[in-house]
Amino acid sequence: MNENFTLSERGRRRVAIENVAPEIDAGIFAIKRTVGERVPVEADIFADSHDSLAAVLKFRHEKNPEWTETPMEFLTNDRWRGEFVVTELGNYFYTIEAWVDQFKSWRKDLQKKLDAGQNVSVELQAGIKLIEAAAQRATARDAENLLAWAKELSVGENVTGGSIEKRVMDEDLSELASRYPDRHFATKYEKELRVVVERELARFGAWYEMFPRSFGGFKGVEEQLPRIAKMGFDILYLPPVHPIGKSFRKGKNNSVKCAPGEPGSPWAIGSSEGGHKSIHPELGTLGDFKNLISRAKEFKIEIALDIAFQCSPDHPGVKEHPEWFRHRPDGSIQYAENPPKKYQDIVPFDFECDDWKNLWLELKSIFEFWIAQGVNIFRVDNPHTKPFAFWEWCLGELKAKNPELIFLAEAFTRPKPMYELAKLGFTQSYNYFPWRNSKDELEKYFTELTQSSVAEFFRPNLWPNTPDILAQSLQTDGRAAFAIRLILAATLGASYGIYGPAFELCENTPREPGSEEYLNSEKYKIKRWDLSAPQNLENLIARVNQIRRENPALQSNRNLKFHPTDNEQLIAYTKSNDDASDTILTVVNLSPHYRHSGWLTLPLAEFGLDQKKTFQMHDLLSDARYLWNGEKNYVELNPEKTSAHIFRLRRHVRTEHDFDYFA
Amino acid sequence: MNENFTLSERGRRRVAIENVAPEIDAGIFAIKRTVGERVPVEADIFADSHDSLAAVLKFRHEKNPEWTETPMEFLTNDRWRGEFVVTELGNYFYTIEAWVDQFKSWRKDLQKKLDAGQNVSVELQAGIKLIEAAAQRATARDAENLLAWAKELSVGENVTGGSIEKRVMDEDLSELASRYPDRHFATKYEKELRVVVERELARFGAWYEMFPRSFGGFKGVEEQLPRIAKMGFDILYLPPVHPIGKSFRKGKNNSVKCAPGEPGSPWAIGSSEGGHKSIHPELGTLGDFKNLISRAKEFKIEIALDIAFQCSPDHPGVKEHPEWFRHRPDGSIQYAENPPKKYQDIVPFDFECDDWKNLWLELKSIFEFWIAQGVNIFRVDNPHTKPFAFWEWCLGELKAKNPELIFLAEAFTRPKPMYELAKLGFTQSYNYFPWRNSKDELEKYFTELTQSSVAEFFRPNLWPNTPDILAQSLQTDGRAAFAIRLILAATLGASYGIYGPAFELCENTPREPGSEEYLNSEKYKIKRWDLSAPQNLENLIARVNQIRRENPALQSNRNLKFHPTDNEQLIAYTKSNDDASDTILTVVNLSPHYRHSGWLTLPLAEFGLDQKKTFQMHDLLSDARYLWNGEKNYVELNPEKTSAHIFRLRRHVRTEHDFDYFA
Repeated sequence: MNENFTLSERGRRRVAIENVAPEIDAGIFAIKRTVGERVPVEADIFADSHDSLAAVLKFRHEKNPEWTETPMEFLTNDRWRGEFVVTELGNYFYTIEAWVDQFKSWRKDLQKKLDAGQNVSVELQAGIKLIEAAAQRATARDAENLLAWAKELSVGENVTGGSIEKRVMDEDLSELASRYPDRHFATKYEKELRVVVERELARFGAWYEMFPRSFGGFKGVEEQLPRIAKMGFDILYLPPVHPIGKSFRKGKNNSVKCAPGEPGSPWAIGSSEGGHKSIHPELGTLGDFKNLISRAKEFKIEIALDIAFQCSPDHPGVKEHPEWFRHRPDGSIQYAENPPKKYQDIVPFDFECDDWKNLWLELKSIFEFWIAQGVNIFRVDNPHTKPFAFWEWCLGELKAKNPELIFLAEAFTRPKPMYELAKLGFTQSYNYFPWRNSKDELEKYFTELTQSSVAEFFRPNLWPNTPDILAQSLQTDGRAAFAIRLILAATLGASYGIYGPAFELCENTPREPGSEEYLNSEKYKIKRWDLSAPQNLENLIARVNQIRRENPALQSNRNLKFHPTDNEQLIAYTKSNDDASDTILTVVNLSPHYRHSGWLTLPLAEFGLDQKKTFQMHDLLSDARYLWNGEKNYVELNPEKTSAHIFRLRRHVRTEHDFDYFA
Repeated sequence: MNENFTLSERGRRRVAIENVAPEIDAGIFAIKRTVGERVPVEADIFADSHDSLAAVLKFRHEKNPEWTETPMEFLTNDRWRGEFVVTELGNYFYTIEAWVDQFKSWRKDLQKKLDAGQNVSVELQAGIKLIEAAAQRATARDAENLLAWAKELSVGENVTGGSIEKRVMDEDLSELASRYPDRHFATKYEKELRVVVERELARFGAWYEMFPRSFGGFKGVEEQLPRIAKMGFDILYLPPVHPIGKSFRKGKNNSVKCAPGEPGSPWAIGSSEGGHKSIHPELGTLGDFKNLISRAKEFKIEIALDIAFQCSPDHPGVKEHPEWFRHRPDGSIQYAENPPKKYQDIVPFDFECDDWKNLWLELKSIFEFWIAQGVNIFRVDNPHTKPFAFWEWCLGELKAKNPELIFLAEAFTRPKPMYELAKLGFTQSYNYFPWRNSKDELEKYFTELTQSSVAEFFRPNLWPNTPDILAQSLQTDGRAAFAIRLILAATLGASYGIYGPAFELCENTPREPGSEEYLNSEKYKIKRWDLSAPQNLENLIARVNQIRRENPALQSNRNLKFHPTDNEQLIAYTKSNDDASDTILTVVNLSPHYRHSGWLTLPLAEFGLDQKKTFQMHDLLSDARYLWNGEKNYVELNPEKTSAHIFRLRRHVRTEHDFDYFA
């Protein structure tokens, strides 16, 4: 033996498994699903020579040490595919195993030789050996069966059920023999890939944000529940509910001068009345908060809390743990800044301080405190200004105990850090939707979000407005603009949200021209909203949310597909469920000012439609029905009446063929 | 402390390094380079928040345990880039390290505060601390320098060389402080990626294949050396030179009946006269073979041998090691087959036999035997019918001892196994060039081969013909077709080869219509070639090879770029060296029958050309010169005269401005 000889048993594994998808960053990160969703997995699987291969997709829930196997199917060009369905919360793992299928290889060659009329007596003996070997690996009953086959084939020409040439190619035999393959030299894909399985609200839900203080606190919010439920929202998200600092408190319109009695920003957290685990006395008590959670549940609404890891200089933690904050060389505490801007009402935690481990534990315990009060959904403020490792650890620990938790990342940052936070465990994320307005911008961005590998780990939550963002598109174009952005958000995204009542009341005055801040923003002011105002969009919102609930196609993102129109102001897209039996076509006139019309092209075959048969488009917004024909159809939308169609495709249109006299 | 607390020091590493390129299959496989080539490396590098980052590309030769570092530069969208040059044969490793640059972050914020006219006295103190900390890490001289800076800045307003605001932003200080960063919490990319560095012939070379027996053996081949050298070939590749079996020997045109005296196929290896380590007596002795190697060297030609791991039934190994072959249930040895075809003159090795380790060692020793005789280049027959693990091991072991070895894979198989063999260690590969004829086919295929990650590990060697492949494109269209395919091969590929003299003599009769086999193929027959025939393409071949040698742009593949023409029969592409000072534009009329003309569009700016200045195109084939102007220029090619231009771009065209009276 050569002294450099380093061959191991690996030398006998002939199958290569490569280019597995989905697989995020070489398997470092998990993909995401919700309970009941499918996980299709593809891979390049091939060996040397021309043997037939077999491959299985293996999967298991983390609680189950045993793998379940499901066969993979050959597609083309050495690509194979399998899929499984996730049925439980938590983590699943998946991997692939593949091997040379000796029996199938033998059978394939035998068929060719039979077709060529060759004498196959020696080949038959080889096949019998393979069958006997399979019997050795088989369960008792199947082993008997296989041995019976081996015996029958070894007898010779005249056998049960026809000539030996016909019998040996029997499908049952093939299936039986391949069920007990020799997997001694099977190749196991070197990685076990992970799926995080979350509940349906992680994928599909409508969010409503409101400031409790503008409604007199938690009890006032309770009074709003019927209205919010009527509009069809699933989640009611509240900005921070904690005591607000007094030092450097910001006044109206973010003024550094604060008049007496001004309430301050809820994001300047902590005062002598308490910190992140306390409730602002003006909102009510912890008991009131828990009552709100219970009442909301009756309306099938969940309460989401805002977690902002930052302090007012008055936060009790600043005195108790000065070591958790950065200090300036003059001994003063370092306030937040984005030079040259200073935010002296805010003091950031120093995630890199020497006592970082205790700080991180304390921060995690803030989530744990609110989870104990019954909160399962959190909107996390500015996660991209805290270390990635913190989130990976913190969300990982929390979700291991509570897989039903949902975390929405307010990650308004560059694309790479935004996606990184999703990879690290955030359930959903804010994104660039507020700044994607034209047809081209929307198509490009939502194709990236839904049709690339991004869709495996990043779930966008679409907000036309937030307390920080009065998008330009809303500022000048009145009620139609709000309707357009609402319908885009609710139909492009399975998850979306609005900040109300600013949104439904079409509040659209910026602090100054060019700004995305609201004039007299609710962030620094208690507002009184006139919900009876005539422009209120409540009815449209209620209709849209009902359509979303009634049509499963709108409850996913990966099924989004854009379709060409010949007018740049008309955007059109479908969402379909797996078998395309439920297909929703949304067409939006992006102009809030002008009537636009044009021709829309649909790939009828993909929806199982006949080029020559009339089909019906049922507009779920207006309840109007249109008969369409062929792949090109005319659409016209006038923003004075409606800016969009949300069509449900109705396949069957009655014709005279349906009457029995026609048959 | 929480008992589940799993935080490690990793928690303090804030920088993420992802999406590194090149990186083949998560770093399992190496990329390829030749000595002197650059290795540009890119990665997504980002952290939370807005701090400035620094990143280095680290690389080392396998013999050197120490990393060399070169700074990476920020491109855009969190993408960074660095590069290094490989200068030695063997393996290099590369990886990335990145960290938060505290001094640069501080400096960036300071600049913004200064710009806003803020008081920065406290910030200055923080900066002095950073400078003092850098001094702690610096070499003696730089430490002194840094401490002098710290002292100067701590004195206050009036300092050497201007106001403190100006001094603190000094570029030298910045450079000096960033040279000694705190890398305690630097992120090291988790993988060390590999580059296999080979010699220039691995990337760039012209191959000539011929059957020695048609020239009377090795001595006859020696007589051909001046002619082959004059044509400009670098490598002379010989089909197997071993004794040929007699059992089931194939006759003329692959007939199963072999007339007495017919020589048989050189790929039916082994007889009573010896096996893979022996020479066919009719070709000469081992001494003659070694003489041929020496003589070839005088002509700067290297000899490449064909290694085909298969035997004639008469191979001595069949008797000595029956355990290395498969046996049929009737006890006979298993011949090669591709059902229903039988190749009874060939017996394959059983790479999976129980004694596989000894078999594999013996096969490796065949390479070692010929390496000992002075052969450094091997063309490997049908590697895709042997296990991938064999090649990974065998080529790995051989190249570890002889990094100058070159292996050309005759991997005519599906794309995935073809690429896999390249990943596993083959230097070059045959490919689908023989079957890519139309402009669209050529553009798509060569874009995949040269502009995707495939180019990092797969080096195509372009053969218009081989003894097995008389491509359809050559069969009907006469001499012009041969000229077209020659020029395409030699200019699209840095490595290419022809099987001669069949090629230069335009031999184009198939065995039967639709077949790619030659009629009276040299594989089964000794041929006598009439080199004085008028159609001999020697002169064109010599000219093309000279152009290749004189123009470095033609010696790479990754620099290939196609350019639009308005005629589907005219294909146009450039290759440029790194700074575009050497640019070759090839234009080929793909029709061997008809004159074609059209307008070609060139991206002038990419070649540093002015839209408004005339430039000269020098046709290196005809020596004609054309003045071109602007991005669109006219081209006309008549196959009766010439089927192609190989232009060298000559930038400067003299005008009256060049005369001093004009100034």
